[in-house]
Amino acid sequence: MSNPATSDLLDKQRQLSCGEFSRLEKRMGGRIMTFHSKSMPRGSMFLDKEASRNSHDKRFDLFRTMSGKLERQISNLRGKPIERSLQEDKEITETLTADRFFDALQGPELETLKEKEKIVLPEDKTWPFLLRFPITSYGMCLGVSSQAIMWKTLATTDAEKFLHVTQVVNHVLWWISLILLLAVSITYLFKTIFFFEAVRREFKHPIRVNFFFAPLISILFLALGIPHSITSSLPSTLWYFFMAPILFLEMKIYGQWMSGGQRRLSKVANPTNHLSIVGNFVGALLGASMGLKEGPMFFFSIGLAYYLVLFVTLYQRLPTNETLPKELHPVFFLFVAAPAVASMAWTRISASFDLGSRLAYFISLFLYFSLVVRINFFRGFKFSLAWWAYTFPMTAVATATIKYSGEVTGVATQILSVLMSGAASLTVMGVLVMTVVHAFVKCDLFPNDVAIAISTEQPKQKKWFKQVKVLDPEDNQIDVEAPPLLNG
Amino acid sequence: MSNPATSDLLDKQRQLSCGEFSRLEKRMGGRIMTFHSKSMPRGSMFLDKEASRNSHDKRFDLFRTMSGKLERQISNLRGKPIERSLQEDKEITETLTADRFFDALQGPELETLKEKEKIVLPEDKTWPFLLRFPITSYGMCLGVSSQAIMWKTLATTDAEKFLHVTQVVNHVLWWISLILLLAVSITYLFKTIFFFEAVRREFKHPIRVNFFFAPLISILFLALGIPHSITSSLPSTLWYFFMAPILFLEMKIYGQWMSGGQRRLSKVANPTNHLSIVGNFVGALLGASMGLKEGPMFFFSIGLAYYLVLFVTLYQRLPTNETLPKELHPVFFLFVAAPAVASMAWTRISASFDLGSRLAYFISLFLYFSLVVRINFFRGFKFSLAWWAYTFPMTAVATATIKYSGEVTGVATQILSVLMSGAASLTVMGVLVMTVVHAFVKCDLFPNDVAIAISTEQPKQKKWFKQVKVLDPEDNQIDVEAPPLLNG
Amino acid sequence: MSNPATSDLLDKQRQLSCGEFSRLEKRMGGRIMTFHSKSMPRGSMFLDKEASRNSHDKRFDLFRTMSGKLERQISNLRGKPIERSLQEDKEITETLTADRFFDALQGPELETLKEKEKIVLPEDKTWPFLLRFPITSYGMCLGVSSQAIMWKTLATTDAEKFLHVTQVVNHVLWWISLILLLAVSITYLFKTIFFFEAVRREFKHPIRVNFFFAPLISILFLALGIPHSITSSLPSTLWYFFMAPILFLEMKIYGQWMSGGQRRLSKVANPTNHLSIVGNFVGALLGASMGLKEGPMFFFSIGLAYYLVLFVTLYQRLPTNETLPKELHPVFFLFVAAPAVASMAWTRISASFDLGSRLAYFISLFLYFSLVVRINFFRGFKFSLAWWAYTFPMTAVATATIKYSGEVTGVATQILSVLMSGAASLTVMGVLVMTVVHAFVKCDLFPNDVAIAISTEQPKQKKWFKQVKVLDPEDNQIDVEAPPLLNG
Repeated sequence: MSNPATSDLLDKQRQLSCGEFSRLEKRMGGRIMTFHSKSMPRGSMFLDKEASRNSHDKRFDLFRTMSGKLERQISNLRGKPIERSLQEDKEITETLTADRFFDALQGPELETLKEKEKIVLPEDKTWPFLLRFPITSYGMCLGVSSQAIMWKTLATTDAEKFLHVTQVVNHVLWWISLILLLAVSITYLFKTIFFFEAVRREFKHPIRVNFFFAPLISILFLALGIPHSITSSLPSTLWYFFMAPILFLEMKIYGQWMSGGQRRLSKVANPTNHLSIVGNFVGALLGASMGLKEGPMFFFSIGLAYYLVLFVTLYQRLPTNETLPKELHPVFFLFVAAPAVASMAWTRISASFDLGSRLAYFISLFLYFSLVVRINFFRGFKFSLAWWAYTFPMTAVATATIKYSGEVTGVATQILSVLMSGAASLTVMGVLVMTVVHAFVKCDLFPNDVAIAISTEQPKQKKWFKQVKVLDPEDNQIDVEAPPLLNG
Repeated sequence: MSNPATSDLLDKQRQLSCGEFSRLEKRMGGRIMTFHSKSMPRGSMFLDKEASRNSHDKRFDLFRTMSGKLERQISNLRGKPIERSLQEDKEITETLTADRFFDALQGPELETLKEKEKIVLPEDKTWPFLLRFPITSYGMCLGVSSQAIMWKTLATTDAEKFLHVTQVVNHVLWWISLILLLAVSITYLFKTIFFFEAVRREFKHPIRVNFFFAPLISILFLALGIPHSITSSLPSTLWYFFMAPILFLEMKIYGQWMSGGQRRLSKVANPTNHLSIVGNFVGALLGASMGLKEGPMFFFSIGLAYYLVLFVTLYQRLPTNETLPKELHPVFFLFVAAPAVASMAWTRISASFDLGSRLAYFISLFLYFSLVVRINFFRGFKFSLAWWAYTFPMTAVATATIKYSGEVTGVATQILSVLMSGAASLTVMGVLVMTVVHAFVKCDLFPNDVAIAISTEQPKQKKWFKQVKVLDPEDNQIDVEAPPLLNG
Repeated sequence: MSNPATSDLLDKQRQLSCGEFSRLEKRMGGRIMTFHSKSMPRGSMFLDKEASRNSHDKRFDLFRTMSGKLERQISNLRGKPIERSLQEDKEITETLTADRFFDALQGPELETLKEKEKIVLPEDKTWPFLLRFPITSYGMCLGVSSQAIMWKTLATTDAEKFLHVTQVVNHVLWWISLILLLAVSITYLFKTIFFFEAVRREFKHPIRVNFFFAPLISILFLALGIPHSITSSLPSTLWYFFMAPILFLEMKIYGQWMSGGQRRLSKVANPTNHLSIVGNFVGALLGASMGLKEGPMFFFSIGLAYYLVLFVTLYQRLPTNETLPKELHPVFFLFVAAPAVASMAWTRISASFDLGSRLAYFISLFLYFSLVVRINFFRGFKFSLAWWAYTFPMTAVATATIKYSGEVTGVATQILSVLMSGAASLTVMGVLVMTVVHAFVKCDLFPNDVAIAISTEQPKQKKWFKQVKVLDPEDNQIDVEAPPLLNG
């Protein structure tokens, strides 16, 4: 029940920026606090006072690195016994299975809690900022740094000389990317240090885990988009440093697909898996640009093999792929990225824009058009930072088109290049505007991250009924409660 | 119960041609009518009197273009109210889902009504001819026009000079193809004009929709098989006109596979999907023959990507692919078409019969032999016009073999060419004979097309039982009626 | 209940070799027999007296070629009637379905009997040796003959000259392979002659059937590894003789995948299927080494098409693939074989170690490393002769690495070659030691082969319950007994 005073305040707040509001907040003290925690449970962008006060909530200790251990050690030194409950809770976190994420969450990014499910963190308070800062934030780095590459390509391709694009755009975008990557990385590093349990839960999350490739790909993008004025050739040893963590992460992820556990491909296949593939092609492109031969082909081969598996699997829409969005969604644009980058990588590897390059490029072009004609999917979806990752493929296919226009010169390819570059830039700007609106106007860019706070146990069910899944006439699995007879 | 007189008549009828029978029919008047509608419910080939009389049956208005609207408008002008039932029925047609087709129909072409299901058109009467004229009729065009190409290739390949095939055969077949295509197209155009609802239902039918590619592919075949005496080079702009509708239709169909609806690939995958793929390769072949470069490679790329998806999916035989025939069936020959045409297309694109061409050709050859050794599948299946489409792949692989024999000269390849061309021609002739027999002797070439007349609602079931699907020990989904407990 | 005397004997036996033990056995007579059949029901390696006495057990006649017929014919000649039960049993064998194997057996090689299931042969006796000699024994031939090739390649590659490997190793290994192949083949030939029913059951076994490719591949390996001192060029007609049976067997197996029966791919997909694919690449490699062109490319094409299907299918881990091991298992190394051999074959076909060769090689390398880092899978699994087949891929990828090091010279590739050759040789030696231990120390190399002795009928169930499969919350199919209501 909001009394007239608070609703009045709410109106005022809408006219204020987040910064002004936070100053206002200070003046109002405790009263606004009550209102805040009720009508704005999805949190505000900054680590405000409320949040810092909330952070003393015992429950957050569950995700805090060392908290339990440290307290216990100190208590032991002081000779006081400490209740082990927190530590026990942490052990429960370790047993969090992939199935629990599928059971407790829904949505194309598995980010919304299902009905009846409960979370282990307070729903009615704004959590500490670091707990609300997701790995998907790296999507911003992907979006901006890929734009830097595109504008570099626009400025250096002869066929696009008529546009008179200067290298300044690339230069500016590259520095923004670098600063953004550093900012996001430092913040996430703090999260890793202070809330390691939260990071571990993000790594266990079937969708989020793919975003752990995003920082690695962002670095590759930065290396690819580096302005000529800084350097025109990076030392090739750098490439091996960049690719090593990608290789290790891939071995882990692809291994999970194959092994018979809960993360097998027929279960987790989702367009975000493309993030775990595209790094191979980006790495191959960078390596081949640096003049390497064997290494880039190695990653290209891996990428091709697993892209094939993923492409077929996603197109089949197996009934077991629960996380694949029912409707079209921006996440589908990730389909376009891999073949577009693969085309550029192959051009470098084979040292010519040959039929292989065309094969990959045309596939990405067709996928792109297939998605564009179904344009109505940007409506009705909740914006999230992950969208940045969904827009970098547009930039990738635009860059591939510029390269293509450099090979097949003509008005048609020039128009196509301009249109697609324009579309990519506009989309990135659109997402940027939405990000700013959510950050500073709606103040909900970083809502409470329920996806990492699911409880490890299923909500209780009636004793003598066991949940079984049967297929209903529309072939969708429905959960029914089997009569005891069924459980024999 | 047929009385002696009618059964006597039945014997006589068997000795008469359809034309004579229809004259006889006139003489016998109403009496034969009674017999006709009982013992020959599957209809006769021509728009006979009976059918024209039947066509005044109110129920056919359901499929008639504008009928409802027009009548209502006229009635409104006259000031008379009209019952809205027909119009409402039409709206129900719009809600016809893919699942309904799977539920109500069976057979490899989803053309037979399941038990307990009812149709919305009279079962005991012969429907108007246009309603009985299916899109699968275009199979004839595919069959004959591909033969025209084969005989053109036979006449122009040096390695087959020893056969002394004249270009006359190609010439004759090409004109027959052209006339056939025009005849079928005009007839189907009339169907579209007068029974638009029926055409829309064919487009919604999960198998039939693939046959909408048949007219487009037939045009490409005609362009490929055009006799040298008419022209040796078509203007390349023509190619763009031919390919545009194929591209649009593909975007629609492939998009349906991917989107999460009832037409997702794991549900509709069926060998007839090859018809929606092979157009890419035929188009690539035609374009490359005309000297184009980028466009053909574009379609080749799309074709390759989706052929891959389809090939894997069909080979897996997912339990969700209900329409995939349990047993081997002529429809499986469609597997052979895509790689055979792809081989020829790649030869043109890469300007040599290289390892890529061989790769595709050998795959089609192996698939062909795999099917041929399982020869017993031409028995026990109900003939339909769709069979024409199932035989054009034989012609395609024979043509590819002739091309191969032009590259790898020798007695072995010459023998293979002759054998496969012979087999293809004989098969087409066999199907031709069956078509003629069904058209003029059995008079059942165009039976009532129940596939488009299914009702939009499921037959009623007992109230407190809900149908669920469970897997029986043989892993086949069986429909059981769940006890109320299961529905919790 | 073992009395002190027998347990004393057991200790003694552990210190004795199998040969000494069998001599001891003779002396002890009937007493040890009793002990033997109880505590060592899994059989001994050799055709000992006990087994030969057991072989008079009527039940073994079930698997004996002609036994029923012959006896009946003799009896008929003598005028005596014979009970038809045995013959009837044999007819039941014919109706043994693939599903029965899945229902009655478990384990990655479908070699262990499930609970409640019964076998048709005596469980408490050691069966005749031939009945216990499985087709998987050919794994030994694969393992040793592939080593012969590897050492030949090591001795003849310039980049590995620094190792000073002599061709003697290849020579010795080749002769061992030849003798081994002859020994295994002769033994299995005897099995085919005397126990044809057992062979037929192995052919029907969904996993074992893939091992029928092993003898054919072993011959190809022998031809590839033939020492230069014997001949440097085999007549190319030999190749056609070798490949014909492979082609026929492939048509049968791949045809089963596609046809809608119980052996469809979505059901039987298992890493052992790679044995039915890799023959294509080995054949292509041999043919191309002999200077043939079209034939090798034909098999390469088939191999590529079906490897693609299998690779995607296995990676998806469809819930219907029951035989795919839940955990990682040596059988997964079969993944590595096909791309490794394909790389070498393509190098021969395209006459250069080009990007295509690298593509295949790098895929096999990545798969290899993916498996190696999950090293703990050689523990906890029951050793069987099939393991030999699982180790030949290591040799294949090592050989491919040597070839690669011949193309991309350098210290890194040389080290890689040495490491991988060493690992392969060590693994083969390790498996050899385990084979020897099981053969001569544990005397259980050839246990009773329950996999071929399953009964054709399911164990009885309560009358009014029918077994149905439903999916439990973890999406695993569980067998439940449906209440009568479910069966409508």
